[in-house]
Amino acid sequence: VLASCGAAGGDPSLAYYTAAAVELIHTLSLIHDDIIDRDARRRGHPTTHTVWGIPISIVAADFLMPKAYMCVLESRGSVPDDKLLHIIRKLSTAGAELSQGQAMDILFEKASRVADEEYFLMASKKTAALFGASAWSGGMIGGATEAQAEGLERYGFNMGLGFQLVDDILGVTGDECLTGKPLGSDIRQGKKTLVIMKAIEMSDSGSREVLMSLLGKHDATESEITTALEIVGESGAIPEIERLAKNYAQRALDSLNNLELRGYTDTLVELAQMAVEREL
Amino acid sequence: VLASCGAAGGDPSLAYYTAAAVELIHTLSLIHDDIIDRDARRRGHPTTHTVWGIPISIVAADFLMPKAYMCVLESRGSVPDDKLLHIIRKLSTAGAELSQGQAMDILFEKASRVADEEYFLMASKKTAALFGASAWSGGMIGGATEAQAEGLERYGFNMGLGFQLVDDILGVTGDECLTGKPLGSDIRQGKKTLVIMKAIEMSDSGSREVLMSLLGKHDATESEITTALEIVGESGAIPEIERLAKNYAQRALDSLNNLELRGYTDTLVELAQMAVEREL
Repeated sequence: VLASCGAAGGDPSLAYYTAAAVELIHTLSLIHDDIIDRDARRRGHPTTHTVWGIPISIVAADFLMPKAYMCVLESRGSVPDDKLLHIIRKLSTAGAELSQGQAMDILFEKASRVADEEYFLMASKKTAALFGASAWSGGMIGGATEAQAEGLERYGFNMGLGFQLVDDILGVTGDECLTGKPLGSDIRQGKKTLVIMKAIEMSDSGSREVLMSLLGKHDATESEITTALEIVGESGAIPEIERLAKNYAQRALDSLNNLELRGYTDTLVELAQMAVEREL
Repeated sequence: VLASCGAAGGDPSLAYYTAAAVELIHTLSLIHDDIIDRDARRRGHPTTHTVWGIPISIVAADFLMPKAYMCVLESRGSVPDDKLLHIIRKLSTAGAELSQGQAMDILFEKASRVADEEYFLMASKKTAALFGASAWSGGMIGGATEAQAEGLERYGFNMGLGFQLVDDILGVTGDECLTGKPLGSDIRQGKKTLVIMKAIEMSDSGSREVLMSLLGKHDATESEITTALEIVGESGAIPEIERLAKNYAQRALDSLNNLELRGYTDTLVELAQMAVEREL
């Protein structure tokens, strides 16, 4: 949000409130996500529902959505009314897509397999839409032309897809001390991430059967999780998805071409790289 | 929303989208409320999570909040931008208060008793704020002056408090076939509704002890629930809370005095009476 505002020629501080709004929307989705996935830890800390219980955590997250809109409205006066309404529409659309994507993600747990297009539709909604809306909104506040705002949205959207692919990889390879999330959670939940689907596709039939039998096994033992993660590691799926993620980061950067941005391109480039080169 | 729009002199159809937005906010709060209270039925039908499971129901309700804002934005063109932003702020404030009220309601379950002022603060946030915001928003769309919109908000707010008091009464007296909700749920949950707190206050010490021991007993038997409801019935609390509810309905009507409304007063009067004279 802030870098896009700057790239469009505005002072990034103009976009503080809208950036905070995006953070609130993101946070509320994580609180509910942790309840849904029954994850006890995130970022190395106990999850909200682990500390406060599920009922309070459901409504605490609900509280953040209207608060996000109140945040955007704080910009009134420094951002013209018609732009504010545009931003509210864009963030609302992304917020609705986020929930749709989460619903798809949940429904996929019960599917035996998920086609690539279905995965990308899910990831577009669950993750990329809000990344795109963030860059678009920042651009609008900074005074972007329509073409610039759309280019920034494509930048954010592609970065979001790359980010999600890496998130999926970290779900099966990540260092628990760095990610702060229990390894094997995606396997136990039966998540149909692209890296897991690719591992199934690329494994020989013996390993494939073992992996498929462990995927979604909520009471899998530590040693079963280790087996599943080894099969994923040996399948060759991880470097393939890493290449794909870098591809999306590159598409993000390509989206900035010919936009005649007014600075902050180094930051935008760095963010896109960070999204796919992170270890947490 | 619609009657307030009409009362302020606007065509009620101008307020359809905003009325739908309020309905969506209300609905999402019910979906999460039913998850939190573990209620299996509402309005005589299985609750969302009973049919679709808790994970999908959490995100289905989340989806409705941004959708509510998208609804309000559909009025763009027929409602001026600055009014739309005002309405978005008012609904956001009410939405945030709603979650705060729900959080208080949940925390009260673990409190041994709750003072009248605490109950009214909770009910103001959980119920009355959205009633007030509805009437205010409809008025704004209909062209209300500031004084008219504030009067309409007071009308909605007081009606909301009356509505909540009657809701609490129906929780301990209601006909399950009419309310569609299982009787005794408030007792088992340990809800500190005003009617239950008054029943504790007004009972003799023997009955008081029995009632307090059953309040919040999740595994209470049918016969224990019958005992608890009898104690509430015999305490004299119900007619007292009924009087109080009617009092708030009257305050709602008094709020309309001297507003020089332009019609729809019969509808507003009828709605305020319905809120406190309903059996479901």
